Amino acid sequence: MFESAEIGHTIDDETYDAEVPALREALLEAQYELHEQAKRQIIILINGIEGAGKGETVKLLNDWMDPRYIEVRTFDQQTDEELAHPPVWRYWRQLPPKGRIGVFFGNWYSQMIQGRVHKQYKDPVLDQAINGAERLEKMLVDEGAVIFKFWFHLSKQQMKLRLKTLKDDALHSWRISPLDWQQSKTYDKFVRFGERVLRRTSRDYAPWHVIEGVDPNYRSLTVGRLLLEGLQNALKTPEGSTNLVNLGPLPSNTDELSLLDNLDMTLALEKDDYDEQLITEQARLSGLMRDKRMRRHALVAVFEGNDAAGKGGAIKRVAGALDPRQYHIVPIAAPSQDELAQPYLWRFWRQIPARGKFTVFDRSWYGRVLVERVEGYCSEADWLRAYSEINDFEEQLTDAGIVVVKFWLAIDDKTQLERFQAREKIPFKRHKITEDDWRNRKKWPQYREAVSDMVDRTSTEIAPWTLVEANDKRWARVKVLRTINEALEAAFAKDDKKRK
Amino acid sequence: MFESAEIGHTIDDETYDAEVPALREALLEAQYELHEQAKRQIIILINGIEGAGKGETVKLLNDWMDPRYIEVRTFDQQTDEELAHPPVWRYWRQLPPKGRIGVFFGNWYSQMIQGRVHKQYKDPVLDQAINGAERLEKMLVDEGAVIFKFWFHLSKQQMKLRLKTLKDDALHSWRISPLDWQQSKTYDKFVRFGERVLRRTSRDYAPWHVIEGVDPNYRSLTVGRLLLEGLQNALKTPEGSTNLVNLGPLPSNTDELSLLDNLDMTLALEKDDYDEQLITEQARLSGLMRDKRMRRHALVAVFEGNDAAGKGGAIKRVAGALDPRQYHIVPIAAPSQDELAQPYLWRFWRQIPARGKFTVFDRSWYGRVLVERVEGYCSEADWLRAYSEINDFEEQLTDAGIVVVKFWLAIDDKTQLERFQAREKIPFKRHKITEDDWRNRKKWPQYREAVSDMVDRTSTEIAPWTLVEANDKRWARVKVLRTINEALEAAFAKDDKKRK
Repeated sequence: MFESAEIGHTIDDETYDAEVPALREALLEAQYELHEQAKRQIIILINGIEGAGKGETVKLLNDWMDPRYIEVRTFDQQTDEELAHPPVWRYWRQLPPKGRIGVFFGNWYSQMIQGRVHKQYKDPVLDQAINGAERLEKMLVDEGAVIFKFWFHLSKQQMKLRLKTLKDDALHSWRISPLDWQQSKTYDKFVRFGERVLRRTSRDYAPWHVIEGVDPNYRSLTVGRLLLEGLQNALKTPEGSTNLVNLGPLPSNTDELSLLDNLDMTLALEKDDYDEQLITEQARLSGLMRDKRMRRHALVAVFEGNDAAGKGGAIKRVAGALDPRQYHIVPIAAPSQDELAQPYLWRFWRQIPARGKFTVFDRSWYGRVLVERVEGYCSEADWLRAYSEINDFEEQLTDAGIVVVKFWLAIDDKTQLERFQAREKIPFKRHKITEDDWRNRKKWPQYREAVSDMVDRTSTEIAPWTLVEANDKRWARVKVLRTINEALEAAFAKDDKKRK
Repeated sequence: MFESAEIGHTIDDETYDAEVPALREALLEAQYELHEQAKRQIIILINGIEGAGKGETVKLLNDWMDPRYIEVRTFDQQTDEELAHPPVWRYWRQLPPKGRIGVFFGNWYSQMIQGRVHKQYKDPVLDQAINGAERLEKMLVDEGAVIFKFWFHLSKQQMKLRLKTLKDDALHSWRISPLDWQQSKTYDKFVRFGERVLRRTSRDYAPWHVIEGVDPNYRSLTVGRLLLEGLQNALKTPEGSTNLVNLGPLPSNTDELSLLDNLDMTLALEKDDYDEQLITEQARLSGLMRDKRMRRHALVAVFEGNDAAGKGGAIKRVAGALDPRQYHIVPIAAPSQDELAQPYLWRFWRQIPARGKFTVFDRSWYGRVLVERVEGYCSEADWLRAYSEINDFEEQLTDAGIVVVKFWLAIDDKTQLERFQAREKIPFKRHKITEDDWRNRKKWPQYREAVSDMVDRTSTEIAPWTLVEANDKRWARVKVLRTINEALEAAFAKDDKKRK
């Protein structure tokens, strides 16, 4: 969920300076129209890591837009008066009226995450708070509000750097409260519980936007663009169809940099290394699957990837390690008649392995946010709500002890072309290349965007995506096996720790 | 929530026999069309009190409709295979395909309520299960399913009677498992937790229907009609707008009997008794408000009722008992400009009393499901979702220690007419009667239906409605004061118990 916000997004000053004037003008215009229509209020929730530029961004928005119609609210310690009322009262009384923008610092999310980090309660009570937030937001949206949820993110290293800089800077030192410092130590917890909260509350009617906070240009421009897009969407959406306001296409990254760009596509293995490592990892997997701790678990491996990225070959190497009774490979193609007569996730639920077993999905439930999205096989509303449905689904799997491993096998444009051409020449491989493959290739940018969104929204602590550099098939196969092994070992280690 | 299902609904055999043939035919027809369209699946959840006719109703539906397209599923103890999979897997694999009807006995609700009754967990974990059910149902509905949720109800006395009959009847005795018998003892718990579940999961896209189970004719006819209405609605709703399927008007009671009919409108107090009791109750309220346990609480009293039912007079008697600094009366009329610029509940949130204080709402948030519904001031979708929003709202109040008391002051048609006429004659009361009042009077049946639905859907354990027989003003005033006093005393007693 946070991976895309740790890859060093930047916008150079020149681009920034060139783009800002038009953006400001458009934002102002949208703001005035919003005020004139007076049909919707805008609620902007500011959350995330300390030092990731939350305050700076809010200041900037006030600069860029007309501050008369922006109300910035900071919710810190509760006042006496607030303590004498139900907890949510403090937010109600600060709601911006229709036509205005309310920026909420330290809102319900900060409260629930901090409480969990400080061990005031455990997950069930956190989940109650999460559910309360969902109900509140759903009601606000049904009443015409538009909610933007920004999570400003920094990697641990970046946060430490940032906190150090701030400390050394006498001008800024007042900003670092003891609590903030403490957060540096509790970064891991904060991110873990934050992820649980984001995963469950990123809903189609009020999705989260995770923004990398390192580079001020990138940060500001991204927030500005998201806001503009959302405002413009809201202005043209009739009042009744409130649910659809946030259903614009997900915004692409401001700097066009995606996790996929961060892959080192030159990674490769020599034949000898490959042979040795493959055997080692296969033996390891075979041992793990026979480990008696496996009785409490099951394993699900999802294979997605570019066409000709080598999914089949990788799956073969995984299966090669195992007794055929232990695993089951499920190839996902167009749904059958039976499957069409059921809710989307049904065909995957029926293939979920029992305890001790392993199911390999050759393509998967992610089809909805990949091919169905790109090819228009389902409505925008369908694929937009699919992200949270999939997160719910995977949470149910992992709650039941199932280890979920998800692979995106990535090759570059050039490699794909070479493989396509090669396939056409080799008789026994000719069936593997069709008109569809050539057609899909033309939609490379759309698929790329869909993959980025998918990883951003569904790579979770409980079921992370592993991006596999697959230009070299040997490298890819070993990485896949190793990742599965590590995931199983981590699950077993957790069991051992619990038993102690 | 269950009050309306404890008032002895009955349908005589003659009416029943006259109506059933047409109902059966219409149900069959709808079923065939459903099957032909094959666009939606119907999921019927059967829950409620033991002995309330759950099994009989399902048997009947199978009789009435074509059993080839109905799949009845009983979820009892989990099988070995089910235990080896995530908990929800058992429901997924039994989902009816589109075009068919699945009847789920012993579904996710029975499981979560039984677990709570048997103290396997506390409220936060129950709430997690509730939230899981909501997400599952929302997803199913978004995918085109139509969900009917029936709660078959019996009062405690009726259940005991019923269990006795069943015990004596050798033919039926196999049905009463030890667990069922235990339920007779744990009736109160079952109803309490059941109510929490119903309150939170009765959503516009999948509302609960509470059915009194005593009279088989009533029970069968009500379920049949609800089902028919829902099916017909589903058949004519285009596939995309899935959320709207359940948004038909709420069904009126099959036998036209409502809680309002159960009131003894002849109840009255002699002048002397009134004077004495009024003073006693006023003194009691005054004492309670000054009790130091009041510091942990606040009090909210909601007054709704027929026009000229005497709300003003009753409120005056309540206020008369108190120091003006302790209470605040909020008359609710048409919303102001400021209020229109906010979500519906905002105007009420701002008037919520701080700890130790008391707010009287002269009309209230129930306007949305009364006047706004009847007069069409809001959309059907708005008032239909308002029930669960209001329940959420009141839960937030009571969670914060606020005691919520709600009064419906009921007078009969004749009494209202007399009071209207009298008002027109008395000069200083003439301002109290307007054209609007006469107009509203013509909508008596619509208001009556709205009141019944309101009480059915929002009378909860945490914030119950009190129906006040108000033909006699003295009786009404004393009953109001006494109810407030009892609610405060109950809250204090709970505190005392906790402290021990």
